Amino acid sequence: MFTTDAVAAPAEGAPLGITSVARRDVGPHDVLIDVAYCGICHTDIHIVRGEWGPRSYPLVPGHEIIGTVVAVGAQATRFSPGDRVGVGCMVGSCGDCASCRSGQEQDCAARVGTYGDPDTDGTTTQGGYAGRIVVDQHFVLRIPEGLDPAGAAPLLCAGITMYSPLRRYGAGPGKKVAVIGLGGLGHIGVKLAVAMGAEVTVLSQTLKKREDGIRLGATDYHATGDPDALAGLGGQFDLMISTLSAPHDLAALLSLLTPGGTLVTVGIPPEPLALPAFALIMGRKTLAGSLFGGIAETQEMLDFCAAHGITADIEVITPDAINTAYDRVLASDVRYRFVIDTATLS
Amino acid sequence: MFTTDAVAAPAEGAPLGITSVARRDVGPHDVLIDVAYCGICHTDIHIVRGEWGPRSYPLVPGHEIIGTVVAVGAQATRFSPGDRVGVGCMVGSCGDCASCRSGQEQDCAARVGTYGDPDTDGTTTQGGYAGRIVVDQHFVLRIPEGLDPAGAAPLLCAGITMYSPLRRYGAGPGKKVAVIGLGGLGHIGVKLAVAMGAEVTVLSQTLKKREDGIRLGATDYHATGDPDALAGLGGQFDLMISTLSAPHDLAALLSLLTPGGTLVTVGIPPEPLALPAFALIMGRKTLAGSLFGGIAETQEMLDFCAAHGITADIEVITPDAINTAYDRVLASDVRYRFVIDTATLS
Repeated sequence: MFTTDAVAAPAEGAPLGITSVARRDVGPHDVLIDVAYCGICHTDIHIVRGEWGPRSYPLVPGHEIIGTVVAVGAQATRFSPGDRVGVGCMVGSCGDCASCRSGQEQDCAARVGTYGDPDTDGTTTQGGYAGRIVVDQHFVLRIPEGLDPAGAAPLLCAGITMYSPLRRYGAGPGKKVAVIGLGGLGHIGVKLAVAMGAEVTVLSQTLKKREDGIRLGATDYHATGDPDALAGLGGQFDLMISTLSAPHDLAALLSLLTPGGTLVTVGIPPEPLALPAFALIMGRKTLAGSLFGGIAETQEMLDFCAAHGITADIEVITPDAINTAYDRVLASDVRYRFVIDTATLS
Repeated sequence: MFTTDAVAAPAEGAPLGITSVARRDVGPHDVLIDVAYCGICHTDIHIVRGEWGPRSYPLVPGHEIIGTVVAVGAQATRFSPGDRVGVGCMVGSCGDCASCRSGQEQDCAARVGTYGDPDTDGTTTQGGYAGRIVVDQHFVLRIPEGLDPAGAAPLLCAGITMYSPLRRYGAGPGKKVAVIGLGGLGHIGVKLAVAMGAEVTVLSQTLKKREDGIRLGATDYHATGDPDALAGLGGQFDLMISTLSAPHDLAALLSLLTPGGTLVTVGIPPEPLALPAFALIMGRKTLAGSLFGGIAETQEMLDFCAAHGITADIEVITPDAINTAYDRVLASDVRYRFVIDTATLS
């Protein structure tokens, strides 16, 4: 064991502060990473406020991690000191179930989340708001040359969360894709779908961020708060990805799909949504959920982003600005993702 | 125009009775069919009770029609007098939209339902509880030799409604399929999924029809009303088809899917269902709707049923027993479909 500086929540709902946490020693399959940047995901805030169930504290959030390899275990031969690497939402899985064998480690029943989850050694995982982290090499991603490291951090969660359903449901030339909600997830989704060759529309509560949406590559932008605007869009979209975490009218969104079209939700509203069966049956529509993605697909996404020059639009903060940043995330006052510069943590 | 005897609802919610209705003359693309049998679908009851919106009356229900060709129009060259044919849920569509061109006429915005829909000539369509019917040849199906005509009638709606999602979502060898609800739809779904090579489980409110389920080919049968029974089934099914038209716990059903699995609803509960986003996101699950099927797929289904000896389990009634039959459908007192013998109607 060794210790590292970290930004931690001392208790559920308490303000975060800088402290010191323990890491396991580097095992034979492990990689020791000097963390350079860690993105702030809305999930981090849900977790430390206890909104997704109890956790043990102190808790270090962070699953959008970029850093440099410092040391590797004897069998961690995929990496060498000096490599630029990333870590996303998970750091362990059984490796043996149907999901793991098919590269969908995120669906493994024994998946270990990057923070706040029971680790295989009985400790609780601690995330990337930290100076250093030790991770099994299977869950370490290679960051391609040319990707700005700070801007690449949010790709490890927000990026793969959008990339996976866009790929799975065929976003590409000839397809009309709607990205619903233009925030941390949505703004990367627009860039990815445009790079895949789709015709992209943003549906946002208001037209406040319209200029951003067009700059990111969308050809169209509509306010979901305006019923007249939506009325003209019926039956248009082959694929819609909803990042909405607020209550919303699911049937109204489904009415915008072409026959046979798919609405994927990656956002998690706090209460169940109302789903009239007719809204799915008429036009044989599909409603799907998606949870980040597997390790191989995450690497594919990073390589795709490097090839297309895609990173997140970010605001870099120092570790002591964490609580202000959380407040601003909750107020939707960031375009579009905060990234912590962890250089001062060791 | 000519008239035919028919079983009609004289007004919304009124008991049905035998009357006479007008049919258009046989046009160049039309087929005149002497109706032999017509199945009673639960939809018929919803419609004549006004539960799915207002219609004009008198109204002749019926969209599970089997008969014999009596005459054909000059350009209706696909059929000849004497052919055994069927008609399902639709008798018209635009023929030109993306849905029609891809063989998904059921998704056409101009689709004409077999009864109670505005027809292209301005009249209202009248269904198959009748002596004769005139239908555009595109919407007439060929009934293969060897299929019992009375037992084949329900295939035109219930059969294709189950066949289409089973095929679309890959029911077959190595796949575990659950059919939810063992009624008119469900019992045909079990037969079809078994014939496709899937391992089939029935999930029904109680174990009352267990023997039937096993006789139809299911390897397993569980009561959804028993929480303990469901608890042991988590994460098992690749595909589930829900025929439930009563309120139910959607999240509980979704929890029974494998990662990446699909729940298709063909049943239509009266109120919206509650859908927690987590139930779709964890395990990347899919919830889809399905509405009968296209004409080519309906013919494929009929040929599949002939090859595998599949018809519905039916109880044949005379036209004057219609109101008693409706009451028994509502009481789930039929195993599994009523079919009207229309021989006495001319």
